[in-house]
Amino acid sequence: MSVIAITDILAGKYPVDESITIHGWIRTRRDSKAGISFLAIHDGSCFDAIQAIAPNNLANYQTDVLKLTTGAAVKVTGTLVQSPGKGQSFEVQAEQVEVLGLVEDPDTYPMAAKRHSIEYLREQAHLRPRTNIGGAVTRVRNTLAQAVHRFLHSKGYLWIATPLITGSDCEGAGEMFRVSTLDMENLPRNEQGKVDYNQDFFGKETFLTVSGQLNVETYCCALSKVYTFGPTFRAENSNTSRHLAEFWMIEPEIAFADLSDAADLAEEMLKYVLQAVLDERPDDLAFFEQRVDKTVIERLKSVINNDFVRLDYTDAITILENSGKKFENKVSWGVDLNSEHERYLAEEHFNGPVVLQNYPKDIKSFYMRLNDDGKTVAAMDILAPGIGEIIGGSQREERLEILDKRLAEMNLDADDYSWYRDLRRYGTVPHSGFGLGFERLVAYATGMQNVRDVIPFPRTPNNASF
Amino acid sequence: MSVIAITDILAGKYPVDESITIHGWIRTRRDSKAGISFLAIHDGSCFDAIQAIAPNNLANYQTDVLKLTTGAAVKVTGTLVQSPGKGQSFEVQAEQVEVLGLVEDPDTYPMAAKRHSIEYLREQAHLRPRTNIGGAVTRVRNTLAQAVHRFLHSKGYLWIATPLITGSDCEGAGEMFRVSTLDMENLPRNEQGKVDYNQDFFGKETFLTVSGQLNVETYCCALSKVYTFGPTFRAENSNTSRHLAEFWMIEPEIAFADLSDAADLAEEMLKYVLQAVLDERPDDLAFFEQRVDKTVIERLKSVINNDFVRLDYTDAITILENSGKKFENKVSWGVDLNSEHERYLAEEHFNGPVVLQNYPKDIKSFYMRLNDDGKTVAAMDILAPGIGEIIGGSQREERLEILDKRLAEMNLDADDYSWYRDLRRYGTVPHSGFGLGFERLVAYATGMQNVRDVIPFPRTPNNASF
Repeated sequence: MSVIAITDILAGKYPVDESITIHGWIRTRRDSKAGISFLAIHDGSCFDAIQAIAPNNLANYQTDVLKLTTGAAVKVTGTLVQSPGKGQSFEVQAEQVEVLGLVEDPDTYPMAAKRHSIEYLREQAHLRPRTNIGGAVTRVRNTLAQAVHRFLHSKGYLWIATPLITGSDCEGAGEMFRVSTLDMENLPRNEQGKVDYNQDFFGKETFLTVSGQLNVETYCCALSKVYTFGPTFRAENSNTSRHLAEFWMIEPEIAFADLSDAADLAEEMLKYVLQAVLDERPDDLAFFEQRVDKTVIERLKSVINNDFVRLDYTDAITILENSGKKFENKVSWGVDLNSEHERYLAEEHFNGPVVLQNYPKDIKSFYMRLNDDGKTVAAMDILAPGIGEIIGGSQREERLEILDKRLAEMNLDADDYSWYRDLRRYGTVPHSGFGLGFERLVAYATGMQNVRDVIPFPRTPNNASF
Repeated sequence: MSVIAITDILAGKYPVDESITIHGWIRTRRDSKAGISFLAIHDGSCFDAIQAIAPNNLANYQTDVLKLTTGAAVKVTGTLVQSPGKGQSFEVQAEQVEVLGLVEDPDTYPMAAKRHSIEYLREQAHLRPRTNIGGAVTRVRNTLAQAVHRFLHSKGYLWIATPLITGSDCEGAGEMFRVSTLDMENLPRNEQGKVDYNQDFFGKETFLTVSGQLNVETYCCALSKVYTFGPTFRAENSNTSRHLAEFWMIEPEIAFADLSDAADLAEEMLKYVLQAVLDERPDDLAFFEQRVDKTVIERLKSVINNDFVRLDYTDAITILENSGKKFENKVSWGVDLNSEHERYLAEEHFNGPVVLQNYPKDIKSFYMRLNDDGKTVAAMDILAPGIGEIIGGSQREERLEILDKRLAEMNLDADDYSWYRDLRRYGTVPHSGFGLGFERLVAYATGMQNVRDVIPFPRTPNNASF
């Protein structure tokens, strides 16, 4: 079979007044009194369905066509014609309607043609892509992923697959899941009576990674421009609209680069991938604008067309202190910012993305480069209106003696980081990078409020269905 | 900083006789008697290094330049000139050599400039990308990954992130890793005295997935053309050159498609991505041809230029039986083929890739579509000379009553597959797909003999280092 995509038909890539065959699923069926059925058929290749007009002189009109309900699969052959209908470009005058699969008991079909709540759709994750919203999210998500790869590839970045299973529990970015093949009902014990991980699959304790950064730095310090795009895991009991136990991250890492270079790359990449959504998915964006978030298109354009503000943490504290705003959490130099502060800066004070940089060292990770003031590190968070922190990054500490001092200050054992320290012992270079949570990006680009609704099968506390 | 990639300099993208600054690591340093040092500097952007010529009248010639050893990081500014040297296009007459990072104790530097065994490099996985072979593998791997996304995107396939953590232990494709946050030293027990997974993070037992196929079928049956490209896991104690506990898979899934369509897509995709390696990485391929596998370029061209043989399992058995060859494992209709049989077919009998199809149902999975003969299923394996099975796929059983019969025959509980069965209850369509092990593809394209050497940090029994 050579199947024609409905998006190509609607784009005018096939000649009118000639025969064409389409494959897809019924979105709706409407019957006229004159004995004609109008079938809206979609195949996922674009937001819109194509209309097929089935006259009652088809041999199987009574037996098949009138049984078609939302979700039924069909193959329709007929003549492609220009559509007289408003907002429709082409339609098919059906000469043959073949039923590929009916819907068993349409009355109980979980995806019947009506508006379903977003929570209900989450429970029906295996059927969710059949809905308008599920299809639109999936297409935008795909556009963003492709654009990320395309952008970084065009700039010479190499995609690196950092490991998911890790033997180090010292990544420090969050709670981890244990990975094991030990028999849980009958755990082996060592002489001290503890679980004997020597007998586990990898001969030691292993976990799911919380970040590919430390690993990808090894490739950066050899090949200059690299990035990860892969899953990461957090075993945190966070039931929020911004957290998943399993999510995808993009982590570019740049050699011979300082914090400002990383911020430049992040800004350029965000603008590029959001522009790709505007260019490639106007159909889905129109839907999101109408049904999900009236401001979504305007917001994307605003991000693309404006320079990101770059602001030192210290200056942000001054702005917050002078804002006259009552925050639930008081601010003063040295505290970590809360969502309310970040949103104030991005949404009220600047009304646009803000690169907040040079944070106090005590609230940041050991690997971030110490600034000359001895108090702050070359870290950045990018805050975006409507979503808060979307990117976190830093220049990495490339000086071994300072790295070791920082490890000691934070009570971390330098031996646990021996391979990471090797990068500083052998031809060390300034380098910088950042992490972009992919689901937060998809949420941002669609206006969806919860990251659970922009990943096919979300994993959250007490939920690993499907 | 705006760093210039050495690949762009060597490609002639910068004007000669003008000043240029390069950043990179020393591959080798050679000093002439006349008081000139020749520095070969690489940055990972291509196989070749660029030569910088440092005269002894540089202020820091004695103090810095003469201390540069393999692996040291430098920033060199000078005049770009055409190179009189054989095989070199451009070089830099250095006016300034800045040391960014020396190598601590060059005598013990693990990546000193000599040939290291592939096993030794595996132990130094964090420094391995600094070697010629490590860099070449990484660039080819990147080219293949980018080409996979580009190819499938251009054909309208949507990238789908199927879940890594799964609640179903019924995927059937192999041994699984358990994912848990329970306190192993103090496991909670239920009333029956068994481990109480209700108290685990997801409220039930969870594992790492062995395949995204069943999940991605849900998206295929809504959006027509989809694919996964993500990690998968096997907790098998396989210490072979073809197996990893953690590896990446590409799994396209096509609606309204039969087995032949899936084979067409697989063949076209393999040819496309291998052509991309020939086009984009001639430098690395020349290295692999010289040092790793003399036949690699020839083999890639042969795959690209020849149609894949399509052969029924039944006919393959006849060929094997009539081959006159003594196999360790005897063949007869109904047995699963061993590597020796697959290699005989691909390497000796046909000397090219073979799509072997329509296997006996009893040696294949429950979800593969039963053929009309009632004995075979629409399954395929693609066998390639030099590596054996590289792709496995099938048409999926879209008929609910036959799927249920197959589940029962295989003693699988239909309730465990309720969401998978829903796809057949609601608008079922013929659909097909396949899985391509990404590391096997990289091994095939480079001539590398062991998949552990084509993934940055391999995970195998008793090894999860770094």
